[in-house]
Amino acid sequence: MTVISLITDFGIKDGYVGVMKGVIWRICPDVYISDLSHMISPQNVREAALILDQCAPYFPEGSVHVVVVDPGVGGTRRPMAARLGMQYYVGPDNGIITRLLGRAERENWEMQFVCLDKPQYWLTDVSHTFHGRDIFAPSAAHLAAGVPLAEIGTAFTDPVRLALPVPSRTARGLRGEVIQIDHFGSASSNIGRELIEGRLQEKERIVVRVAGAVIQGVVDAFGERPEGELIALMSSAGYLSIAVVNGSAASKLGVKVGDPFEVDFPV
Amino acid sequence: MTVISLITDFGIKDGYVGVMKGVIWRICPDVYISDLSHMISPQNVREAALILDQCAPYFPEGSVHVVVVDPGVGGTRRPMAARLGMQYYVGPDNGIITRLLGRAERENWEMQFVCLDKPQYWLTDVSHTFHGRDIFAPSAAHLAAGVPLAEIGTAFTDPVRLALPVPSRTARGLRGEVIQIDHFGSASSNIGRELIEGRLQEKERIVVRVAGAVIQGVVDAFGERPEGELIALMSSAGYLSIAVVNGSAASKLGVKVGDPFEVDFPV
Amino acid sequence: MTVISLITDFGIKDGYVGVMKGVIWRICPDVYISDLSHMISPQNVREAALILDQCAPYFPEGSVHVVVVDPGVGGTRRPMAARLGMQYYVGPDNGIITRLLGRAERENWEMQFVCLDKPQYWLTDVSHTFHGRDIFAPSAAHLAAGVPLAEIGTAFTDPVRLALPVPSRTARGLRGEVIQIDHFGSASSNIGRELIEGRLQEKERIVVRVAGAVIQGVVDAFGERPEGELIALMSSAGYLSIAVVNGSAASKLGVKVGDPFEVDFPV
Repeated sequence: MTVISLITDFGIKDGYVGVMKGVIWRICPDVYISDLSHMISPQNVREAALILDQCAPYFPEGSVHVVVVDPGVGGTRRPMAARLGMQYYVGPDNGIITRLLGRAERENWEMQFVCLDKPQYWLTDVSHTFHGRDIFAPSAAHLAAGVPLAEIGTAFTDPVRLALPVPSRTARGLRGEVIQIDHFGSASSNIGRELIEGRLQEKERIVVRVAGAVIQGVVDAFGERPEGELIALMSSAGYLSIAVVNGSAASKLGVKVGDPFEVDFPV
Repeated sequence: MTVISLITDFGIKDGYVGVMKGVIWRICPDVYISDLSHMISPQNVREAALILDQCAPYFPEGSVHVVVVDPGVGGTRRPMAARLGMQYYVGPDNGIITRLLGRAERENWEMQFVCLDKPQYWLTDVSHTFHGRDIFAPSAAHLAAGVPLAEIGTAFTDPVRLALPVPSRTARGLRGEVIQIDHFGSASSNIGRELIEGRLQEKERIVVRVAGAVIQGVVDAFGERPEGELIALMSSAGYLSIAVVNGSAASKLGVKVGDPFEVDFPV
Repeated sequence: MTVISLITDFGIKDGYVGVMKGVIWRICPDVYISDLSHMISPQNVREAALILDQCAPYFPEGSVHVVVVDPGVGGTRRPMAARLGMQYYVGPDNGIITRLLGRAERENWEMQFVCLDKPQYWLTDVSHTFHGRDIFAPSAAHLAAGVPLAEIGTAFTDPVRLALPVPSRTARGLRGEVIQIDHFGSASSNIGRELIEGRLQEKERIVVRVAGAVIQGVVDAFGERPEGELIALMSSAGYLSIAVVNGSAASKLGVKVGDPFEVDFPV
């Protein structure tokens, strides 16, 4: 059966997510609806882009990811649906798919983008404030029900992209920044595995500097160090990260998104 | 496939909601179970009534909404199931359906109410403290599995209704009150579209007063005003509301449920 | 249809849970995935054991419970799948099933345990930090898809058990401890119904002492006492508990997990 996933900044108290589920099932009665996250910080498109990029590759072909973090709702930003490889994205054209687009380009996925401009695939009354309910949920449901992408909108080729920070080379290694603090208080950088895997054979000699802390060595697993110790390791999403064994690096260091994250390689 | 939705004040940490899901699937193995909200403030029947009323109309025919906000559990309040139009409600008879009943009456839906007094449709052991698990979840599952409403309880005609605040006329317009603060910190009043839509042709001259703030004009969309500005607009649920563009009116004004919400129309 | 339930300490913001759902549906496209709790305190195996034991007995035969609270991930703890009666558990072999094992032994359920050591049932790349995604989710999906337990791992017979606190007899009754504070602020002890039901015919003469408070009498239902009163009652999970009627015992008393919980029976 098809899966429609939901990522929003709606929180979990109000009925906003519930309304979208109802809309979807009225149009497409046989589809799994899966909450991915509704705790994206309000209007934080970058955070949504990260979660989408981390989750989508693990989903089945044909999955439809609805992501509604939409500070421009009711304005001029395009409502959008896209095919990226064998999956679909539905939501505002505001850069949420930037990371997934990068992946698609590196891996040569087929891509298609349409502007959702066919009201027959929306709810009858469209508000100025809740396109998640009025445009995105119904469009996703029609896709899940088998309506072709080209049918529900008009093609375009220039989706909006976020200008994401990229790591730079330094005299001694790399300088990136913190892009995510997770529930455990671990802090992930934007330094991907591909940038450092050539140096991991001497990983105990790598030095990581972040938020005033200096960490000697990169470990493979939490269990290599005692509880409470600050460690550097590759995150499960493939980025160089810091963590405290059975604790919180965020609490210990006060590290936050945007902080510099430096790596020194051995000479 | 049929959908059973769940609204509770159980929170999301404990196993209470999980237990209800298990009970439902044991009785009715083929049904989607959809969390709407488990973050209703403890024992806050009014909040649950709002969320139910906002979500239910978007769900498919045949959906069963289980709402367990039940301060009177184990006492004399009736356990109840109702048909409202083409959907079902299962939960305590304590006013949770008040708003949905109003909608049903305005739109002339067929209605039926039964007191859940047939133990053969409950779990074998019924506690004094968790009818969500012991009575409501199994009753909802039997409904979803096709047992007729009249079969699972004894008919009655006088469901409990909450005495909800209604807006009153003032010399210059209307005086309502704040009925909901959402995840974004926007504050919704009980002044529905029908009360003001006759005046919206001069909407830039309407004045809204709430929590010490005076807002000139009602806008259609967030994007009409700069970030950080306090605005008045119709909420997606159809009530006059205040919000801060990409910010929180609740944080800015300290506004809370029950605060007066006044509208002055132009003379 | 089969149900896979998820209990983790991952929280609900990050994509960790979402990733597991994707992995499951790619392997087993027709399965309900049900969130039970993702708010287990980080690394708190005891809490997870409680939630699992409270939820699982209510689920249908064939359900697969994936529980990922895994402080030893990447170390030497065994990855495990078990059959306990007619249901399955998948997760680390770190004691999470301790309570469910006790239940299984008291009720003579059939049991089988395997160490997940067959990489053909895992994702291709296995990280050192996220076995929930790489080993447990795929193993659960294969079980749900009908692969026999004996196929996905190598049998063993000595699952790890937590040393859980047990109540002791005192001169006047029993001395247990607080094992759970729920969303409502009610505090449950480890004194099960079987330890006190012989004395419940004189329940108004039982005295409960916890966190400095002395409560006279055990009631059946919240409604027997006025709002705001501190009461003792059997929890819906079958343990002697304290609560405040429409309030929070945790806020009122500052009670916490591990606090002594004493019961005096009448002489």
